[in-house]
Amino acid sequence: MQRIYFLLPIILLMTESLSAQSRPRELGVPFGVMTPGPLNAITDVAGVRVGHTTLIEGDSIRTGVTAILPHAGDLYQEKVPAAIYLGNGYGKLAGYSQVKELGELETPIVLTNTLSVATATNALITACLADNPEVQSVNAVVGETNDGFLNDIRGRHVTQAHVLAALGSAAGSEVEEGNVGAGTGTSCFGWKGGIGTSSRLLPESLGGYTVGVLVQTNFGGVLQIAGVPVGQKLGRYYFRDELESHADGSCMIVVATDAPLGPRNLERLAKRAMLGLARTGGIASNGSGDYVIAFSTATENRIVAGGARVRTLSELSNGAVSPLFLAVIEATEEAIINSLFAAEDMTGHNGRHREALPVEKVLELLR
Amino acid sequence: MQRIYFLLPIILLMTESLSAQSRPRELGVPFGVMTPGPLNAITDVAGVRVGHTTLIEGDSIRTGVTAILPHAGDLYQEKVPAAIYLGNGYGKLAGYSQVKELGELETPIVLTNTLSVATATNALITACLADNPEVQSVNAVVGETNDGFLNDIRGRHVTQAHVLAALGSAAGSEVEEGNVGAGTGTSCFGWKGGIGTSSRLLPESLGGYTVGVLVQTNFGGVLQIAGVPVGQKLGRYYFRDELESHADGSCMIVVATDAPLGPRNLERLAKRAMLGLARTGGIASNGSGDYVIAFSTATENRIVAGGARVRTLSELSNGAVSPLFLAVIEATEEAIINSLFAAEDMTGHNGRHREALPVEKVLELLR
Amino acid sequence: MQRIYFLLPIILLMTESLSAQSRPRELGVPFGVMTPGPLNAITDVAGVRVGHTTLIEGDSIRTGVTAILPHAGDLYQEKVPAAIYLGNGYGKLAGYSQVKELGELETPIVLTNTLSVATATNALITACLADNPEVQSVNAVVGETNDGFLNDIRGRHVTQAHVLAALGSAAGSEVEEGNVGAGTGTSCFGWKGGIGTSSRLLPESLGGYTVGVLVQTNFGGVLQIAGVPVGQKLGRYYFRDELESHADGSCMIVVATDAPLGPRNLERLAKRAMLGLARTGGIASNGSGDYVIAFSTATENRIVAGGARVRTLSELSNGAVSPLFLAVIEATEEAIINSLFAAEDMTGHNGRHREALPVEKVLELLR
Amino acid sequence: MQRIYFLLPIILLMTESLSAQSRPRELGVPFGVMTPGPLNAITDVAGVRVGHTTLIEGDSIRTGVTAILPHAGDLYQEKVPAAIYLGNGYGKLAGYSQVKELGELETPIVLTNTLSVATATNALITACLADNPEVQSVNAVVGETNDGFLNDIRGRHVTQAHVLAALGSAAGSEVEEGNVGAGTGTSCFGWKGGIGTSSRLLPESLGGYTVGVLVQTNFGGVLQIAGVPVGQKLGRYYFRDELESHADGSCMIVVATDAPLGPRNLERLAKRAMLGLARTGGIASNGSGDYVIAFSTATENRIVAGGARVRTLSELSNGAVSPLFLAVIEATEEAIINSLFAAEDMTGHNGRHREALPVEKVLELLR
Repeated sequence: MQRIYFLLPIILLMTESLSAQSRPRELGVPFGVMTPGPLNAITDVAGVRVGHTTLIEGDSIRTGVTAILPHAGDLYQEKVPAAIYLGNGYGKLAGYSQVKELGELETPIVLTNTLSVATATNALITACLADNPEVQSVNAVVGETNDGFLNDIRGRHVTQAHVLAALGSAAGSEVEEGNVGAGTGTSCFGWKGGIGTSSRLLPESLGGYTVGVLVQTNFGGVLQIAGVPVGQKLGRYYFRDELESHADGSCMIVVATDAPLGPRNLERLAKRAMLGLARTGGIASNGSGDYVIAFSTATENRIVAGGARVRTLSELSNGAVSPLFLAVIEATEEAIINSLFAAEDMTGHNGRHREALPVEKVLELLR
Repeated sequence: MQRIYFLLPIILLMTESLSAQSRPRELGVPFGVMTPGPLNAITDVAGVRVGHTTLIEGDSIRTGVTAILPHAGDLYQEKVPAAIYLGNGYGKLAGYSQVKELGELETPIVLTNTLSVATATNALITACLADNPEVQSVNAVVGETNDGFLNDIRGRHVTQAHVLAALGSAAGSEVEEGNVGAGTGTSCFGWKGGIGTSSRLLPESLGGYTVGVLVQTNFGGVLQIAGVPVGQKLGRYYFRDELESHADGSCMIVVATDAPLGPRNLERLAKRAMLGLARTGGIASNGSGDYVIAFSTATENRIVAGGARVRTLSELSNGAVSPLFLAVIEATEEAIINSLFAAEDMTGHNGRHREALPVEKVLELLR
Repeated sequence: MQRIYFLLPIILLMTESLSAQSRPRELGVPFGVMTPGPLNAITDVAGVRVGHTTLIEGDSIRTGVTAILPHAGDLYQEKVPAAIYLGNGYGKLAGYSQVKELGELETPIVLTNTLSVATATNALITACLADNPEVQSVNAVVGETNDGFLNDIRGRHVTQAHVLAALGSAAGSEVEEGNVGAGTGTSCFGWKGGIGTSSRLLPESLGGYTVGVLVQTNFGGVLQIAGVPVGQKLGRYYFRDELESHADGSCMIVVATDAPLGPRNLERLAKRAMLGLARTGGIASNGSGDYVIAFSTATENRIVAGGARVRTLSELSNGAVSPLFLAVIEATEEAIINSLFAAEDMTGHNGRHREALPVEKVLELLR
Repeated sequence: MQRIYFLLPIILLMTESLSAQSRPRELGVPFGVMTPGPLNAITDVAGVRVGHTTLIEGDSIRTGVTAILPHAGDLYQEKVPAAIYLGNGYGKLAGYSQVKELGELETPIVLTNTLSVATATNALITACLADNPEVQSVNAVVGETNDGFLNDIRGRHVTQAHVLAALGSAAGSEVEEGNVGAGTGTSCFGWKGGIGTSSRLLPESLGGYTVGVLVQTNFGGVLQIAGVPVGQKLGRYYFRDELESHADGSCMIVVATDAPLGPRNLERLAKRAMLGLARTGGIASNGSGDYVIAFSTATENRIVAGGARVRTLSELSNGAVSPLFLAVIEATEEAIINSLFAAEDMTGHNGRHREALPVEKVLELLR
């Protein structure tokens, strides 16, 4: 892939200034018919916190960890209803089967690179054992994508300490996007990918719930933004011969909501995130590990360790979930595009280089 | 298959008198460690009703319909939480995907023969439309096994009227077993199969719940009763060369409980029914359509049409379901053996004959 | 719904002339990066045939049947590898579990309205029994959507004869789109829906395979065509208060390919059809029965009744399926839009009226 | 649990002498109608190798690792068709989703304790990276049960070196059973559990295939051996009040066959292993992580890295799999009982003691 040298600093400058100030929505890119929350982030769901550890060291380490915490308490003592949907199961996510069986999440969610899932799992176990002196069994949920294009992934540079740092730094405020945390070294649609987030609010008449989405983008297809076939117009897309490999990679998607959903409807919600991915031109290619983890923070539905034999729950009826489906579709689409707008050029392992999406050109195409 | 002629009337006599009076448990056959309900039938779950239409006409019609109603109201207006587990999906059960998606049952359950599922579906639609003038969509749940050995199944002799009659005759009392309803023409382990039922009560300390099971037995394997390898000892079992076909067929299993379980735990409960089938020597062969339909009658969890956006539910915690698992295993095992003890010799289509299990010999083997 | 008289003939005229001559692609609407087959229809897959029975009678009957035949032989004697994906299982499709278990299709696929599934099932059984004198068990696959807005669905006007007629008329040529067959009375995104079809060819370097898609569109969301938010711009979309019900309904999707795929990869292919639906703005709402049936026509992989114990198969490797994924995404998107462009205004049951998509306006928006 | 001191050495003596010489089958315990292979072990499947690392150190370390290798080559370069069935997903098995999606196994299978899954995963990654200099992604499959009653599981004493040692020591000969490898510290039905194995041969007329099973037993229920309710007779079973906890734990089951099965039929095969577990009285309780991993060693079906786009496979037809189902049921039942007969008394963490099954008493009950 060629680029003219003297253009590089200029584009970088523009990208940086844009990403610092302006997310696509602020730049006028339209995303659907619903209203985002105040932060337009997964942290709009009350109680949800996000923390990043970003590892950029030397020429080759370009990776990291992102942690998503459903609430401020001990997850093992107060589990939350959850589901994981396998959009395309070519991936190494840890924790799937127990979430499927029991319908609950008992650790924070950690995202990292493919070969560091086990280390992140060990970190979550370490943290849980430390906080719970009697626990002998805990189901850590860790997702991943493969950042091996820019990162020396075989070096396995993520340590338990990095994971614990991401957990420790988690906050409920604005979420940094782009080349941070688990998105540090990722690629998306042939450009630099990263972390993105977005949210939607339902009107009070439909329950007033919030849906938040966070993505780690590392996949391919034929990029379209607000319906404009940006990938084609910029000549970078799956199925153009020389760039075929742009399809593979993965997308991790985390969906949070305060709506009182049980695991069955959370799985349905998770499934819709893939429809949001489709709207960006993603194709869930064979080699893509596309997983969606969804949980509900509804306080009354937490599963308290040692609780009563019969619990009393609230549950949104099947007939009332469709607005949440639309919310997760829109928020996923926007979160993915946000990750692309926020990501910046990166050079990494073996001198490989990944350009950021040329935001100015994209905005021009959209006009 | 040879039998000495002059023994036939004697055995028949004994079988009949036994089935009229004595179920295996009363004859001393042991079944597990839990206590059955007063009827030792699915109707021990309060509100559950069962009705049969038995079709024995001429030389060739040996089939029927069995209907199971979760409660006395209109199911469409008051749906119940439900799940269907595919033990082995070689079968034509109607209604699976909507139960899976929505977690609810909106018609009675009807069992019949393989080629009459569509007719039974039409009957359930007819009944629902008649009772609900506005309804334009209803998900009928109909299970089946193939009674084509004794029954002229290609003749498709079951009519909508037969199905409606089974629904209309449903009662919450003792359940007739053996050659009745959907079990009229079935075979099991190489002997005459049929309808069987059983139940278990949990002690008050574990919630005092009831689990009831009803089976339509039409499958094979190597029969064992109370652990005794009856099939081998009587020389009739799958994998003996000449009798290989004894494995195929199907088993429909319906599980009812008044415990407050949602669809996820109902599916887990349903899954355990296959463990009960295994204890009788069933192998779920390739050609067997083994389906388990489970529902909860817990009144507070019914899904009322036009109900509130947010429902309040009760739910048994994951940690308290294991006794129900054991209950369904034991009740399924006993229901299957009950069906064999109750079934009687039958001659049917093309002069084919199926002997009843020789109960006296079995009891002798068990001593 | 009223319309001003003098506009009617003009718009109708245009619509008719357009649908007769011009599909969206011919009108300049862009659809992805791949190349369609010569017919741009599911019948581009060699051997696949499609037949319609269209029922438009009196004021209230607006329904029909569409049949898709994978090959010219007897499906029961030469089954094809197949899979069914539950995009959203709120529907009454018949035949799911056996296809899931055995990975094969043994009847043609029939689409019709929700309350006629059982009748269509009976018709497929009738046809199979007539052709196969020994058969006692057959798994009919019938999909449906609910056309009860325009059609007197409770009248259950589809008969076995209608189904057999659709089967009998099936041909491998151009496929009629719009208000025909199972799409006669459907609605989509608030406009008139119907039948649509499209196809994609892989280049020889990737195997030269064909993927064909046929859809019965009857669902909602926020319509977008070639990325343009047509629904919003025309003021007709889900989540606008008064039109909320536009989301529900269903979409049946049939995917055919001559690529040598087994059931596992066919299910993955089927799953991607939902990504194509997402690109049109569909949301797979709670009440939508979105099912995808996929089959392979690869001759060497047919499952011949009474064949050898060990079969020799060809199978496309996992690493080579991604181009097929993109093909099914693009073809599904285009088939849905084709159905909307081809459908025409219709007045039906209880005087209800559904306008066709205003094609001229849409084309203007796209310019 | 109390025991009279002076009985201990005597019982231990008997158990040891028995386990050294005699497996249940040799002691006359009957298991089904099929014939075992020469070793009556998973290693009867040609090419399969098993290795153990047993960790018994000080007062508290009672754990280990068991590795199962499908063939002698590099699994990453020559993957085998595989499937994993979730009998009850309360467990932390690694690698599920990719096996589900791609239908193949690309590492050896490792079994260990619950809190060491991540370490074992890291060991498999280490081994794969060392052997494959270009690999950046590998899906390690690691199963587990919780040995925390006897083992200081929170100490996490398993290291990568222990795992690599188990892999390195794997052999295709007799498999040690009982308190070895991943079964070192496990409990089953209230007695000492461990590793067990068994196999079945199909007659040449049915293909002459071998099925082998290896189990790590750590679960509960109401033990029955050859149909005799041993658990009840010895007063030790689930649902007796004071021993209720005997139900939980887990069972890992590995199934190998040389029959040419693809992932779909391997999953069906895996599903039948749970029927074998049921025949021992297991109930798959809520807290039990019951997973079955099945693979085929058929040489012609290996998935060679960088192989052709279209592979030629052999596949056993659906109609020929039932004998394999019976084989896996019988072999699983026998493997579980084998593990109990081979296991010996053990004292471990916090001075806890687990008695071995009193084999002499059991044999007496069986007479």
